Amino acid sequence: MKKIYVNELKNHYGEEIEFSGFVDNIRDLQWVQFVILKDNTGKVQMTIEKSEEQNKEMVELISNLPLESTVKVTGVIMESPKVKLNGMEIIPTNIEVTSTSALELPFNYKNLDGVNLDTRLDYRFIDLRNDKNMLMLEIQSKLVKYMREYLYNNNFTEIHTPKFIDTASESGAEVFEVKYFDRKAYLAQSPQFYKQMAMASGLSKIFEVAPAFRAENSNTNKHATEFTSFDVEFSYVESYHDVMNLEAEMLTYSLSKLKEDYNDTIKEMFGVDLNVPKLPFPIMTLEDVYKELEERYNFKVEDSEKTDLTTEAERLCYKLSKDKFNHEFLFVVDYPADKRAFYHMRDKDNKLQGYDLIWKGVEITTGAQREHRYEEIVKNAKEKGLDKDVKFYLEFFKYGCPPHGGFGVGIDRLTMLLLNIPSVKETQFLFRGPNRLNP
Amino acid sequence: MKKIYVNELKNHYGEEIEFSGFVDNIRDLQWVQFVILKDNTGKVQMTIEKSEEQNKEMVELISNLPLESTVKVTGVIMESPKVKLNGMEIIPTNIEVTSTSALELPFNYKNLDGVNLDTRLDYRFIDLRNDKNMLMLEIQSKLVKYMREYLYNNNFTEIHTPKFIDTASESGAEVFEVKYFDRKAYLAQSPQFYKQMAMASGLSKIFEVAPAFRAENSNTNKHATEFTSFDVEFSYVESYHDVMNLEAEMLTYSLSKLKEDYNDTIKEMFGVDLNVPKLPFPIMTLEDVYKELEERYNFKVEDSEKTDLTTEAERLCYKLSKDKFNHEFLFVVDYPADKRAFYHMRDKDNKLQGYDLIWKGVEITTGAQREHRYEEIVKNAKEKGLDKDVKFYLEFFKYGCPPHGGFGVGIDRLTMLLLNIPSVKETQFLFRGPNRLNP
Repeated sequence: MKKIYVNELKNHYGEEIEFSGFVDNIRDLQWVQFVILKDNTGKVQMTIEKSEEQNKEMVELISNLPLESTVKVTGVIMESPKVKLNGMEIIPTNIEVTSTSALELPFNYKNLDGVNLDTRLDYRFIDLRNDKNMLMLEIQSKLVKYMREYLYNNNFTEIHTPKFIDTASESGAEVFEVKYFDRKAYLAQSPQFYKQMAMASGLSKIFEVAPAFRAENSNTNKHATEFTSFDVEFSYVESYHDVMNLEAEMLTYSLSKLKEDYNDTIKEMFGVDLNVPKLPFPIMTLEDVYKELEERYNFKVEDSEKTDLTTEAERLCYKLSKDKFNHEFLFVVDYPADKRAFYHMRDKDNKLQGYDLIWKGVEITTGAQREHRYEEIVKNAKEKGLDKDVKFYLEFFKYGCPPHGGFGVGIDRLTMLLLNIPSVKETQFLFRGPNRLNP
Repeated sequence: MKKIYVNELKNHYGEEIEFSGFVDNIRDLQWVQFVILKDNTGKVQMTIEKSEEQNKEMVELISNLPLESTVKVTGVIMESPKVKLNGMEIIPTNIEVTSTSALELPFNYKNLDGVNLDTRLDYRFIDLRNDKNMLMLEIQSKLVKYMREYLYNNNFTEIHTPKFIDTASESGAEVFEVKYFDRKAYLAQSPQFYKQMAMASGLSKIFEVAPAFRAENSNTNKHATEFTSFDVEFSYVESYHDVMNLEAEMLTYSLSKLKEDYNDTIKEMFGVDLNVPKLPFPIMTLEDVYKELEERYNFKVEDSEKTDLTTEAERLCYKLSKDKFNHEFLFVVDYPADKRAFYHMRDKDNKLQGYDLIWKGVEITTGAQREHRYEEIVKNAKEKGLDKDVKFYLEFFKYGCPPHGGFGVGIDRLTMLLLNIPSVKETQFLFRGPNRLNP
């Protein structure tokens, strides 16, 4: 017999069914046992009358069963308006214990308030049993599904680029070194070079969802040594505005789909209003951002720091975009070219053809039109002293390459902002940081 | 103006359009220039009459333009039955060169016969311009899309498990070592342990598409140090037959969708008949396979080798499954338990509850019901002397874990078999092997 899931039970009232799941709770009363069973779709009550002779063995079994054990129950699913939980109950005829839990859990996952985050991460497989965490992973899966869906609908091709790279490129300090047989290899900190290789190959519209590795010894709520990066690149752009438009449309599409599926649940479980952003997203220059932050909120920073958004300025961008545009998102443009990667295009006046996207006061994306002309990209690489390290990459542009651009966005960070979760440590399936490789 | 793609041009006859793409070919005749332009959706002819005064600059430009350069053309797209290529032509009013190719390509990618594979891989970005390679990547993207689609339709959740692991588990020899700040980490050779952690967390149905890393110094057509693994795991299975059924259904769904999209193209470009397999897939025991290979084809191997399929026996399984079942796929079961990973379930008689799936004579999957009971999995790990290495993993089963099973399949290998391509070196976007880290 096939397992029926909790969310399907209502279609089987009066039928004999098989239900498998975790034992969530047991109330062992004088005349009756109420057992709450659960699977990932919900919870259901199983009711065992103690007085009935044929229930004797089951009553005995339940009396000695640790919570969180798993069972396979054969029985009848009854509509029972008197039962608070979903108005139904299972009347079992047989219970088989499929796994037995240790008597004591390391912590009570049903109430995580005050539980040390490291303890939670040590036992992530218990931590994830929490209803909110379970839902979070489901929403994350859907978020990525909808982002892909938008791209499929626009004729994008999904590719899988290598994570092993030959040289510690982009910036040596931040890549992990691998013992690769009798030599060294490195782990890609982004698929940037290979996304662009796809453009040189003529693929024209691609995306990739894959791990990215950053050897940064930083312990913040936004950073991890490994995260899931959602990367997009496409050819025949007129300017980086095409890139911003595509990203804004993709996010809007995905958020509106999520709102259809989860609006009330997200509100109820996470206390978050899921707002579908309006198109187009507002755009401001970096200079104007600082000007307005000062004018509106008396926020001042040294001129020397104004080559990028400081963490505090980034945070204030949420207020600014809400106050000025009634929008959660803000594109910030016109960063100084010399502070950005050599593969970002600059115009004739050396103005950077790229952007950052800030959502709720946190940077989620860097995007740009890329430099696709061989002479220019070689010149840019030389300026940064990288031309030898990225020799393999410069070759991509020697035999024709269309104008192109793209962006990357971390799905752990997106999930964090979407559901107002304090840290990516809680939105990754299993966080990896400088001090965390376990479990 | 927005670029129109080749496959959209027919909807714009008579209109002024913008077309960007690579210069595929130029025929510079006495009175006219025929320029073949292409993007990833096809090719189109651009016609320039030399006699017309206003064309003078364009004629000059085309005369000096290396093939494979990229251009942005403004002009009118005309229906022209006399033009062999798609019965249409672009009459340009302006041509802008967006990138210039080097005069000489490293090889002629339009005819790869006899081109050394290493040279092709050195210049993979040129190699991929080949029509068949371009199509191959598109089909691979769709294959993965349809596999995911099948799982989404069956309420699976996509997860992203860490690739950094703490110990060189499963089998120390085959994992890559990473310098991880002041200590060592390793790269996951599969998401096996974390897929199972998801089951212990109560997720019940998950999949992952991600790189897997194998430090095997083997140079075959089927192996790579890094490949894209499509992994599935789900709870509440009755036996490994549930796992085989799900995999067979997923593959059948995906192949039937691909047949709808690409049947004639695959036949024409790759000479392959895309057969949608019949359900259920045939199943044979390892013992019966060897028995029949001997009876039918007089194929003999030493008894000592019969604990697994030899490469030659694997190859012959194609013939066997065709002859006996008229089927391309064959599930092989009843492998000796002691030759398989400790996490595969065995029954009371120590019989392995797992399988290999052979497609066209190549193993594409190992799948199984897993051992989910704490005492049993600890015992199995101890037997293999792995209990210390996998201590973190054994914890997953201590607090209740439903019966579950799953499988993994490499999409590069699937693509190889689907399109009858000789090697995964040609089906990976960019191959990685013991001697290949470049580009």
